[in-house]
Amino acid sequence: MRYDKILLDHGGGGLLMSELISHTFLPKLKNAYLERLEDGAVFDIGNSKLCFSTDSYVVSPVFFPGGDIGSLAVHGTVNDLSVCGGIPLFLSAGFILEEGFSMKDLEKIIESMAQAAENAGVQIVTGDTKVVAKGAADGIFINVSGIGIIKYKGIISPRSVVPGDKVIINGSIGDHGAAILSKRQDLGFKSEIISDSAPLNSLVESILKVSGNIHCMRDATRGGLGAVLCEIAAQANCQIIIEEKDIPVRKDVRGVCEILGIDPLFLANEGKMVVFCPAEEADKVLKTMKKHKYGKGAAVIGEVNKKDRGRFVLNTVIGGSREVDLPTGELVPRIC
Amino acid sequence: MRYDKILLDHGGGGLLMSELISHTFLPKLKNAYLERLEDGAVFDIGNSKLCFSTDSYVVSPVFFPGGDIGSLAVHGTVNDLSVCGGIPLFLSAGFILEEGFSMKDLEKIIESMAQAAENAGVQIVTGDTKVVAKGAADGIFINVSGIGIIKYKGIISPRSVVPGDKVIINGSIGDHGAAILSKRQDLGFKSEIISDSAPLNSLVESILKVSGNIHCMRDATRGGLGAVLCEIAAQANCQIIIEEKDIPVRKDVRGVCEILGIDPLFLANEGKMVVFCPAEEADKVLKTMKKHKYGKGAAVIGEVNKKDRGRFVLNTVIGGSREVDLPTGELVPRIC
Repeated sequence: MRYDKILLDHGGGGLLMSELISHTFLPKLKNAYLERLEDGAVFDIGNSKLCFSTDSYVVSPVFFPGGDIGSLAVHGTVNDLSVCGGIPLFLSAGFILEEGFSMKDLEKIIESMAQAAENAGVQIVTGDTKVVAKGAADGIFINVSGIGIIKYKGIISPRSVVPGDKVIINGSIGDHGAAILSKRQDLGFKSEIISDSAPLNSLVESILKVSGNIHCMRDATRGGLGAVLCEIAAQANCQIIIEEKDIPVRKDVRGVCEILGIDPLFLANEGKMVVFCPAEEADKVLKTMKKHKYGKGAAVIGEVNKKDRGRFVLNTVIGGSREVDLPTGELVPRIC
Repeated sequence: MRYDKILLDHGGGGLLMSELISHTFLPKLKNAYLERLEDGAVFDIGNSKLCFSTDSYVVSPVFFPGGDIGSLAVHGTVNDLSVCGGIPLFLSAGFILEEGFSMKDLEKIIESMAQAAENAGVQIVTGDTKVVAKGAADGIFINVSGIGIIKYKGIISPRSVVPGDKVIINGSIGDHGAAILSKRQDLGFKSEIISDSAPLNSLVESILKVSGNIHCMRDATRGGLGAVLCEIAAQANCQIIIEEKDIPVRKDVRGVCEILGIDPLFLANEGKMVVFCPAEEADKVLKTMKKHKYGKGAAVIGEVNKKDRGRFVLNTVIGGSREVDLPTGELVPRIC
């Protein structure tokens, strides 16, 4: 179906966004790098294999339990580079500020970006600031692009995924989405849900150190774990079978999901990633994850079953089994 | 002076923006790359010297004579990389779209980006799309970041500028600013003023081919030629003397400036750059520029006079001489 106007769903990480990219962006900007539709582009310059990624951050509210738009922006781009197998090195920061935005809030956000960059061991080396009139933007938007260097020899890509691969996640899903939603809607829980926003580069580094045979990694941001598994299944032309009972979900996150009628499978994460690797590697990858502060809750949640038309199948807790599609309806706008 | 809130002027390319960067951004994000305050960061990865730059584009109106936000975004980042002495290779594109934005306009803009990228010989290799609710942004904002490779052996930087250097510009100033302003305000001129938006990489390449001794290049975008000369004078700790009579300004641009009471010196360009080189190189640089389609109107407009506290002095057409400061008052918002 064609749309005349951009809908919120076009940015939601679901089917409409996927269609916008494949029908509108790709045919015009066609090139081999972009067509891979991965978290970043990978190319050689000189004797180095580099990755390059970009993300704009429009999260609302700007400050939330566990972070703010500044730390989120640094983590998000660091993670996109990391799951390409890259060691993130240099970031850019582009600010779009609304006239009247609080200088104090801006200072807090920049401070938070600086802290996040330091924690992740990256440097923000170039920037830009634009200001638009009151009403022409909502407070602050930040773009962070980044460059990383890839030293890993394997090809980390959905195209490397094969039947028999195990699917591992580094912890509980939906924390970021639930934190934003409960802050936004003031659900009145006693204890705050904290976003999982975190830099995953050192976790990735330790995984790549113990296994020379990682097939694919992807951070599960907008659209959540569900969207990522749909995309990887499609790109790998494989059926991925996931055991719902094995997916870690925090009790308070499950509570928010039940109140709002949302499936945590499609709720955004900002410090969670899935790893695909051969079954014989899974144990040491899992152990490595569990030893890391951002992987304590790691779990094997399923496996790649067979070559097929590329679908993701969920074996549900109540004993059923269903093919999961990218959601078409409204996800959660401005979650990142 | 301290401000509690962000003002439009903080994004204008003048004094307030300079203060925002030096008082708010730099102290927190402190690192050797960012402190250079150049159009892009320059660093080595492996055996390659790379440059990395970012810009967000918020121009209004989105379509204007001579281009649109899409071509502008590609040209702007290509030019930032070029004036670092880099050969632009790869770009990213990050879109922030307002719910309800016209799909047809989006398609036109992407088409225009694709065309601009092809003309400049660069590839858009990675992207991101966010959608915000109606009223939370004004139509479309685009961030384009880019990576280039530097093969030139000299150090192209305001810090390389020395007394005796000639200052050369590749053509008439203020065209982009005047095009946007006359479109915005519908000044009712018979003939449209066309933006000079253009990719300067091939012009830069031909300049660097004929001279191994280019000291500095800078594209004169927001804040115009005036702001660029103020910044370079300050960074070089040199006095720059410019002959107003030698600065090319189109008659229709001068007309718009007179009607609106704006000095073309501070009006934005999107296809103009200044080059600083030793006097003995100036002639061949000028000739090379004049032979290029984006340098036909090139002219030597002044020279670097002496080491001093870093000011830019204008010898005016009426025979006077004045130190020019970065403007403090309102420049033109959303010009790029």
